[in-house]
Amino acid sequence: MDNSFRTIWVKDAQTIEVIDQRFLPHEFVVRQLRTCNDIVDAIKQMVVRGAPLIGATASYGVYLALLEIKNGTKQADYINTAFEDLRNSRPTAVNLFWALDRMKKSLLPIDSLEEQIEAAFNEACSIVEDDIEICRMIGVHGLPLIEEIWERKGRKTVNILTHCNAGMLGCIQWGTITSPIYQAQAKGIDVHVWVDETRPRNQGANLTCFELTKHDVKHTLITDNNGGHLMQHDFVDLVLVGTDRTTRQGDVANKIGTYLKALAAFDNKIPFYVALPSTTIDWNINCGLNEIPIEERDQNEVRMVYGKTSSGTMEHVLICPETTKAVNHGFDVTPSRLISGFITERGICSANESGLTSLFPEQG
Amino acid sequence: MDNSFRTIWVKDAQTIEVIDQRFLPHEFVVRQLRTCNDIVDAIKQMVVRGAPLIGATASYGVYLALLEIKNGTKQADYINTAFEDLRNSRPTAVNLFWALDRMKKSLLPIDSLEEQIEAAFNEACSIVEDDIEICRMIGVHGLPLIEEIWERKGRKTVNILTHCNAGMLGCIQWGTITSPIYQAQAKGIDVHVWVDETRPRNQGANLTCFELTKHDVKHTLITDNNGGHLMQHDFVDLVLVGTDRTTRQGDVANKIGTYLKALAAFDNKIPFYVALPSTTIDWNINCGLNEIPIEERDQNEVRMVYGKTSSGTMEHVLICPETTKAVNHGFDVTPSRLISGFITERGICSANESGLTSLFPEQG
Repeated sequence: MDNSFRTIWVKDAQTIEVIDQRFLPHEFVVRQLRTCNDIVDAIKQMVVRGAPLIGATASYGVYLALLEIKNGTKQADYINTAFEDLRNSRPTAVNLFWALDRMKKSLLPIDSLEEQIEAAFNEACSIVEDDIEICRMIGVHGLPLIEEIWERKGRKTVNILTHCNAGMLGCIQWGTITSPIYQAQAKGIDVHVWVDETRPRNQGANLTCFELTKHDVKHTLITDNNGGHLMQHDFVDLVLVGTDRTTRQGDVANKIGTYLKALAAFDNKIPFYVALPSTTIDWNINCGLNEIPIEERDQNEVRMVYGKTSSGTMEHVLICPETTKAVNHGFDVTPSRLISGFITERGICSANESGLTSLFPEQG
Repeated sequence: MDNSFRTIWVKDAQTIEVIDQRFLPHEFVVRQLRTCNDIVDAIKQMVVRGAPLIGATASYGVYLALLEIKNGTKQADYINTAFEDLRNSRPTAVNLFWALDRMKKSLLPIDSLEEQIEAAFNEACSIVEDDIEICRMIGVHGLPLIEEIWERKGRKTVNILTHCNAGMLGCIQWGTITSPIYQAQAKGIDVHVWVDETRPRNQGANLTCFELTKHDVKHTLITDNNGGHLMQHDFVDLVLVGTDRTTRQGDVANKIGTYLKALAAFDNKIPFYVALPSTTIDWNINCGLNEIPIEERDQNEVRMVYGKTSSGTMEHVLICPETTKAVNHGFDVTPSRLISGFITERGICSANESGLTSLFPEQG
């Protein structure tokens, strides 16, 4: 893994830089974030996205808010507003709340603003470094799944289908589902990835294809409609997806459409694994369908598609009549009964409470 | 139903006119077809699409081929080439073969070119009129399904999900799945349609939304990913889809992604009906998965999306890296076990051989 390529980094003491993912794969734009509000906007506008990266980015928001208080552009009580705004920036991914709780805890014992600033900076950086290590370990534990298929097939290409982007672009480095793939590739296993385009925002087409291209991983773009057909005809060996929130009983909220792929995998007896850092587990809830709030986004994300014209300009094109309305749910819930297993930083487990608590007994 | 609005009509003795569906909903372009080759191209390029409309359009191709022979622009044996070219224009929809066989049969007893021309014209026109009546009857038989839900819900909105366009634009008038919807609406039933955009060509967004707008039917555009979530949360009362080919045992080849919606409907115990003119039944085959050829189309339909820019021009926009390749299967097969029933011009039946032959005993 090329250590120089990350999704977020510290430019200087006042500036966090991120890749503006809205312009990939066509333009590589770096955006500077200098205030907590910049951070909130970056999360809301999906400059950054992906559960782990949202959490990491929000952590630096706490640091920047404290700097703003020090600089006098904000009052001392702004820190509460900052936590509130950051918490409300996206509703579904639980890493956001986890990261903010971790930041809050790190500040609690400290009185002086100066020391709080230092503690916040250090904690945000360590959230970033922890995520990198967690993703690396997901790869270590997921690799044998791919190896086993590779050997069983007599070392013929292993075909993995994925939805959305649970790659390094959704994290800091490695990614969740891409970590076993990158590690398999590094080991000489012939891997090929079917990439769902993932409407409405096309994170599969835009982001997963971009990072697989960058890492020289063979891949083919497909519409979200095509996966079932490929599974029926034995063109898929393994489905790997990420998660924005995982419940104690093993339900998974992930990008809208994940549930349909889980149904197809189940119907065709194809292993369907969810790669997850334990930071996406919400230990306080059980039933994903009833207890996870599903974000509803702007209807224009559905009515229009963003991309590059033949003349090289970036445009939104309208695909329906001017008067037609749309709805746009960001996520759906895949019930645990459809999931073959979880790949976590501590190993693989079954998608239920006893599986999860066997790996994380401290939550038992 | 406004009788003046059709998808194909005779302009004059040398000219068939069709709506060029590639430009809907943004532009209403009428295309003139004057040779058999024009017809073949119109089918291949999807100027016209939808199983019944493909069959009807191909019929006029036979007529135009005979005219070309008469005009001396083609040799007498061109008629065989014409049949061959028409037959090879699209591989999946069986109506095409059915219509061509019907045309061939109508010409068989006739020797003189002049009389063949007249017979071909009459037969093509009667294929068109038959389709209109078949679609009207599908509506008559499908209407009670919608009425029953309407009454059961205490006359609250009936929410119907559909995929692709099995509307009047895929036929001549009425459409298959839209016929019961239009008839329900005319009866005062409050109907609302969830329209899958249906990537890659977006026939749902482009065509179904267009014709529902034109007929004042309430509808909401959704991504192909969203239907499962809506079904999980009780926002869908009924799924209605069309078919390009139906096997004797009741498997259905329809637009890619139909299978995923069938799985979701089955998982959520939502009725999933296929509206079908009997002309889509291929009585000679049983297993849809093994016996129906699935068309593979240009990868650029997946890599790019076509629509209207904010400045009003029509553009294709690229959604993935320049180097990323795509595959593009046009259809998938929904096994009969997932289908609640068929709505045909002779009534409703279960999705299996005994159901079909109870309505069509001549095929028993």
